Formats: sequence, C-alpha cells, structure tokens
Amino acid sequence: MKRLDPKEVLEGIHHADRRLLSKAITIIESHKFEDSKLAESILLGLKFPEKKSIRIGISGIPGVGKSTFIESFGMYLISLGKKVAVLAVDPSSPITGGSILGDKTRMNKLAENFSAFIRPSPSSGNLGGVAKKTRDTILLCEAFGFEIILVETVGVGQSEVAVENMTDLFVLLLLANAGDELQGIKKGIMEMADMILINKADGNNFIPAMNAKTEFENAMRLFKPKHKFWTAPVLAISSFEGKGLDLIWNQIENFLISAKESVLEKRGRQNQIWLWTSIKNKIDSEIDALRKSHLKISEIEVDFQKNRISSFKAVDLIIAEYKKNQTSEFV
Amino acid sequence: MKRLDPKEVLEGIHHADRRLLSKAITIIESHKFEDSKLAESILLGLKFPEKKSIRIGISGIPGVGKSTFIESFGMYLISLGKKVAVLAVDPSSPITGGSILGDKTRMNKLAENFSAFIRPSPSSGNLGGVAKKTRDTILLCEAFGFEIILVETVGVGQSEVAVENMTDLFVLLLLANAGDELQGIKKGIMEMADMILINKADGNNFIPAMNAKTEFENAMRLFKPKHKFWTAPVLAISSFEGKGLDLIWNQIENFLISAKESVLEKRGRQNQIWLWTSIKNKIDSEIDALRKSHLKISEIEVDFQKNRISSFKAVDLIIAEYKKNQTSEFV
Repeated sequence: MKRLDPKEVLEGIHHADRRLLSKAITIIESHKFEDSKLAESILLGLKFPEKKSIRIGISGIPGVGKSTFIESFGMYLISLGKKVAVLAVDPSSPITGGSILGDKTRMNKLAENFSAFIRPSPSSGNLGGVAKKTRDTILLCEAFGFEIILVETVGVGQSEVAVENMTDLFVLLLLANAGDELQGIKKGIMEMADMILINKADGNNFIPAMNAKTEFENAMRLFKPKHKFWTAPVLAISSFEGKGLDLIWNQIENFLISAKESVLEKRGRQNQIWLWTSIKNKIDSEIDALRKSHLKISEIEVDFQKNRISSFKAVDLIIAEYKKNQTSEFV
Repeated sequence: MKRLDPKEVLEGIHHADRRLLSKAITIIESHKFEDSKLAESILLGLKFPEKKSIRIGISGIPGVGKSTFIESFGMYLISLGKKVAVLAVDPSSPITGGSILGDKTRMNKLAENFSAFIRPSPSSGNLGGVAKKTRDTILLCEAFGFEIILVETVGVGQSEVAVENMTDLFVLLLLANAGDELQGIKKGIMEMADMILINKADGNNFIPAMNAKTEFENAMRLFKPKHKFWTAPVLAISSFEGKGLDLIWNQIENFLISAKESVLEKRGRQNQIWLWTSIKNKIDSEIDALRKSHLKISEIEVDFQKNRISSFKAVDLIIAEYKKNQTSEFV
C-alpha cells in the first residue's frame, strides 16, 4: 500500500470521502510504528462541525436483538435526516467468539445506505487498547460529519464501563421472560443505564414485554439514580415491527435537554479518564517490549529466580531500568 | 502500636508464635510506607522447611458449601498429622459483598485447633494487590511450618486465575442440580480444575450427586486436558457427613506423584508471573500518586483539556515526568 499523506486523508475525511475514512480507521487500529505517527498527524488535524454529535452506547447480550435494533433505529434516524455511524467495542475473545458486528449482512439496509457507516470492532488487543481505538474512531466519524454515533457492546461486564466512558447516553436492551441470570443482568449494569428497552414486544411476546416493562420500572426504583435530573425510562419496543422507535428518539432528546451542560462536563471527565487509561496502556506496552528485548532485564529475572536477589529488589531494579529507557514514541 | 523489630518477628515465626505470625501478615497487608520496609525485611529473612508445602486452590460459588468443606477437609488433614493454613483471595467488592472467610465461626473446629490457622482475605485493594499480599502470606505460613495451604476463592472469574497462579493444584466445588448458569460454571474455570468435587452428596441429594458426577465426567472429556499426565477426577463427597475426604487426599497424593518435577516448574513460572504483576502494580500505584501530587502533571492535564496540546503529546509528557521521578520505594 502506498504511504498515505495525512493531508490527503484529512481532506478526504472533511469532504466526506468514505474510502479515506475507512483507511484512516485502519491506520488508527494498526499496531505498526509508522502508522501510529500517521495516526497522530490525522487526529491532530481533525476539524469538527460546530454542532456536537450525540454518542449513544448500546448494550445487551447476544440474542437480545441488538443488530435488528440498530438496523431499525438507524434507519429511523436516517428518515429524520440524520447521519449515523455504528461502531463496536469489544476485543475478540474466547467468550464473545470474535468481533461483534462482524456480520454486516445482518444490517442490510443500513450497510447500503449512504447516510450510514458501519465499522466492526477492532479484531485484537486488550479492552483498554480497543476502547482507545474506538474513541479515536468516534472522532474520525464526527469530523466526517456523522451526527449520531451508536457504539455497540456485548453485555459481558467491563466493556460496558468502557462504553459508558465514551458515550453521552447508555441504552440497555433486555428481553421479557429470558431470566435475569441468562441475560447477565447485574445491578452495576442496570444502574449504568440511562434508558432500558424491552425488545421484541411483538406477536405473542407483546403481553410478556409489557409485564416486563412494569417489573423493570419497579426494579429501577430500587437503585440509586444515576442522575439527579433524570429517571431512566423503560420502553417496550419492537425492532422487527419498527414500533417505539419514535419514543426512543423522543426520550433521547428529553435526556439531552434535561442534561444541559452536564453532557459537556461528562465529556471533559471522559477525556481525563481516557488520558490516564492511555498512559497506563502505553506503559504496559513499553514494559512488555522491555521484557522481551532487554538483556539486563533477563539477568535480573535470572538473579530473582535463583534467589540471588529478593522480589522487592528485582521489582525496583526492573522499574529503574524501565525509567532509564527513553519513551519510544507510540508503542 | 510499638514499632516491631523484624528480627523479633522472624524469630517468632520460626518458633511458631501465632501472635507474631498474625502481626507479620498485618504488616504485609498494610498500605503504610514504614510497614512496607518492615515487610521486606521480614520476607527477606524467612527460612523455609526442607519439605515443600502443598498449595491447594479451592473455588466454588457462595452456597456450594466451601466453608463446611474446608472445615471437614481441614480437620481430616489434621487427623493425618498435618498442619493446615486457610487463606482467601478476593478483594472486597460490591459483587462479593465483602471479605470471604469473614465469619470464622463457620469453621468452629478448625478455628480452635492448634494445628490450623485461618486468615480472612485482605479487606481492600484491587485483585492484583490482594493476590500479591496473599502470596506473601503463603510464604509466611510456610516459614511458620504449615504444610498444607488452602487458598479459598469465590467463583467470580478473574480471582480463579489469580489463585491458579499461586497454587499447585486447583479444586472446584460444584453442586448437583443447581443449574450451570447459577453455578457460574464457565468452560475456562472447568478447564482450570485439577479435581472436581460434587459437594452435598448426602441424604436425598445422594443420587442426584452421583448422576452429576457422571455428567461432569463426560463434560470434562470434551475439554482440552490441562496436563498430559493427569485427568481431573470428579468425586461426589459429603462435607457434612465427612464422606469422601480420604478419596480427595488420595487423589491429591496421586496428582503430586504424577506431576513430579512439573510442580516445581510451575512454581518457577508462578514466580515469574508474580514478579511482572508486582512491577505493573507498583507502577500503577506510582502513577496514581504522581497524578495526585505533582504540579507539573496538573499543568499538562489542563493544557490537554483546553486543547493546547494533543492527547499524544500529553501522554508522552506525563510518562516522561514519571520516568524523571525516582522510584519511591514500596509505594
């Protein structure tokens, strides 16, 4: 591949060239040293529309109907004239069995629509690293002109926190009658939700979904509210029949009006969290690199293994060695 | 509290003074700077019996009967003339609802027996930190003369890996008929087990337990074996009636005979993992301390928040500041 010029990429992004947006994301996700220099130049050069985007996190276990929901809700937003980007946070892992959103064909209409952009999750790396790349991808999509960013995550714990830390609003999808255990509903994740959607409220499932709506409304009252200005609504919807999508959008608008400045404050805090996560991730990578390549480190490890030095001494010696090494930029 | 002399503590431990063993563990678990210096002196001065201890990890969700099992099995080991220490790994957390083993009264006989020692889990800190302290506590107990170290963990995922990384043998307790979801049985944890115990095989539960034994034996055949030399046995036991305890001990002895040198190799690998975990934990604490106290860092953060410098620049500047700071010993 011909080396890309950051100016060319930036111009492409600012002029809505989808091919160059995709290339820019690939550069962001790359682990190569040259690409990380290029990634920095691109990120530094981004210009954003004056109107802030809306970042929405969407969580729920496999089977809850996330893809169908994103397809329906995304198409609804497009019918309102919005431009929608769909991203995913999740390191591929034995638990999730690979990248989510991997199968774009499950979102046929959205994938073919010019007002939408779908990007599967980065295929490897630890959660911290993947989350950082997703955050940078959000910025690229915003500079491109996408007004609503949907960030999907599979409901397995830590990734929800990562998504909550990069979105304005966190939506949890649930099913009626699926059993709390099976849905992985944990107090922590329920408390994180700004909105709960009972999906598949259609056909024979309509009455159970309405019952579940009441149950979850009662359950939510037991939790400490996340915001002073907002009680998370529980909506019963049908992604399949497209029912309730207007109510969701209505509630999102209500949330943003009620939240006022606190969304901007939250983004400020998120930047801070993201900075310190980036610092720890970078140090971790540097430490791993040091461990693999550094002769002096191997000697310290052998001295420790043969009981010639204590573990305390070994820890201090290795950290001292690490500090002596100049920061290799963008490991 | 009068400042302790490391020599006095060491002499106490090597002469089986239980009061000083408890004090030494409290020093290990302390977050104070003076205590960490003292902790190092103590750990460096430890002398170990020639015969290696046996370190056994015990996992299973609340309700599986871990306390009753440890009480029965511990008393059985004591009847064989063994000295037994019981420790726990788990940071107190909203999920587990506090320290496990907190209620020593659930292990009445063991708590009162002179050949046993019970220590609840450290009450705060991240898992990495807690696990490190538990590992140091294992060393103290071994220097004291305990021959069998039982390390308890609650079955919630990552702590199993921490326990597997500090024991010779990993035992998983399960129940008949409790449902896989409810028991949190995940492939990863099943594959980690060197022995599976179906507990509460007594009264009306005897037949279901025997059926569960067959089921889990079949399930285990589907997994990749953990060792070439060992197939994890599934035993149905009753902690309450004390049935099957001799079989467990018999299988532990078989395991150690089959494992031969590989137990020592495993301990070598564990030391290595522990060293690098300690390094990352220490750097994390140092970074957190730097963040709280360092004026220059606050300036960099403000520059980043006000978009005067890029996140890339901010990360590099902060890491450079960190490297300039001398390692504060034993944060």
